[in-house]
Amino acid sequence: MDEKKPTILVTNDDGITAKGIASLVEIAKKFGNVVVVAPDKPQSGMGHAVSIHGILRVSESTIFGEDVKAFACSGTPADCVKFGISQVLKQKPDLVLSGINHGNNSATNILYSGTMSAAIEGAMEGVTSIGFSLLDYASDADFSGAMHFGSKIIQATLNDTHLPVGFCLNVNFPKCAIEEIKGVKYCRQAEAFWDDWFEHRKDPGGKDYYWLTGEFHNHDQGDDTDEFALAQNYVSVVPVQYDLTAYHTLKHIQQWEI
Amino acid sequence: MDEKKPTILVTNDDGITAKGIASLVEIAKKFGNVVVVAPDKPQSGMGHAVSIHGILRVSESTIFGEDVKAFACSGTPADCVKFGISQVLKQKPDLVLSGINHGNNSATNILYSGTMSAAIEGAMEGVTSIGFSLLDYASDADFSGAMHFGSKIIQATLNDTHLPVGFCLNVNFPKCAIEEIKGVKYCRQAEAFWDDWFEHRKDPGGKDYYWLTGEFHNHDQGDDTDEFALAQNYVSVVPVQYDLTAYHTLKHIQQWEI
Repeated sequence: MDEKKPTILVTNDDGITAKGIASLVEIAKKFGNVVVVAPDKPQSGMGHAVSIHGILRVSESTIFGEDVKAFACSGTPADCVKFGISQVLKQKPDLVLSGINHGNNSATNILYSGTMSAAIEGAMEGVTSIGFSLLDYASDADFSGAMHFGSKIIQATLNDTHLPVGFCLNVNFPKCAIEEIKGVKYCRQAEAFWDDWFEHRKDPGGKDYYWLTGEFHNHDQGDDTDEFALAQNYVSVVPVQYDLTAYHTLKHIQQWEI
Repeated sequence: MDEKKPTILVTNDDGITAKGIASLVEIAKKFGNVVVVAPDKPQSGMGHAVSIHGILRVSESTIFGEDVKAFACSGTPADCVKFGISQVLKQKPDLVLSGINHGNNSATNILYSGTMSAAIEGAMEGVTSIGFSLLDYASDADFSGAMHFGSKIIQATLNDTHLPVGFCLNVNFPKCAIEEIKGVKYCRQAEAFWDDWFEHRKDPGGKDYYWLTGEFHNHDQGDDTDEFALAQNYVSVVPVQYDLTAYHTLKHIQQWEI
């Protein structure tokens, strides 16, 4: 490996064989020495789950060719980042990249997202991290626009020598042709939520079961949100933090007398 | 059910048979009509995972007696909240309570926590929500102090008519006798992290496997954090938000030229 180039740990939540991670490895190779630790099966919707009650299996993979060391891991995306840093690299990489996810991780989707939880795990370990997602759930989605603008965002991140420790980005790409993408917008997370319900079905034995389903609704009228940017065919870039303290509410409850 | 009392949805991540949820149901019954939807097996460390690729099974349970409607659900804690609101209550409850967790969910543990993800899910659905955790992992832990101070916190929450929509608390109880608890502190989330590693073992067939393990380190010198409060035998109360936007960093990256 070229010692001068940055070390880049790549993971995702759709699994090591997904088109999205192949696209991300392809652009990451332009910027540094790439090591992949990715789930051996789809792990979408896993949030920030970690395997504290079960074992991990890890096997080396040649899926990205000879110049990319790669491992398939039985754990969650957050497990993959922990394993990559602690067991494979045995030191912190310069960058953690996660994705490119097949599907939307804008707004509150970030909380359910294995892709973004992997990026947040990287940030919690003090490594600059970016999660990438394309608003197309198809397994053969067109990642060309995502690769073009994703490269620019990786370059800008590596060029910036004044990033805070734990810097993390949630990047979403609109579902449109590359020439229709208008550019990049720096945004806040929209107040947009899933309105959930469950489909009630009977199995062949007559027993009840349920499928979670729902519709995503944007209640946020702001023009500074990720949802607004994506609806206008911009790439949305939201800087992310893992301090969940609601500081404005802290002042309010400090008046409680218990 | 008494129509005038608040409706309280209770869940946890240790499973419906855990001592911690029995303790929480016991105190919740003093404040309202309690409905339980909880995992049918332990779901610790599941973060904000949701079952988008698999079915849910749900069965009614009499574990909490005749006056508490209860359901065991095969899904994650976040699934339980979604199912409870959409399928069982068919309307939003007045309060979502999660726990009492057997183990610490202070500092960045909140991100991995099924207990707190259930509370955050409640908040995302616009319901005032509280997650409770005791710094004792034992299945027969002493919840008397947690129940005493937990009741006071539920009472203060129900009494406060000026809470913002999506109000959510992360409450942790120190591991000590009830008479040693000094009181309640309103805190921010500490910058404290897991230093992870993996134990490498061989199975009886000679194949490699790994156990995630680690040590929790508090790098935060502040006296206003949950870690500081708990170390002094105070109950820590951190108000929580699900907007992960790093607003301070947003200003910085808006200078990027892409």
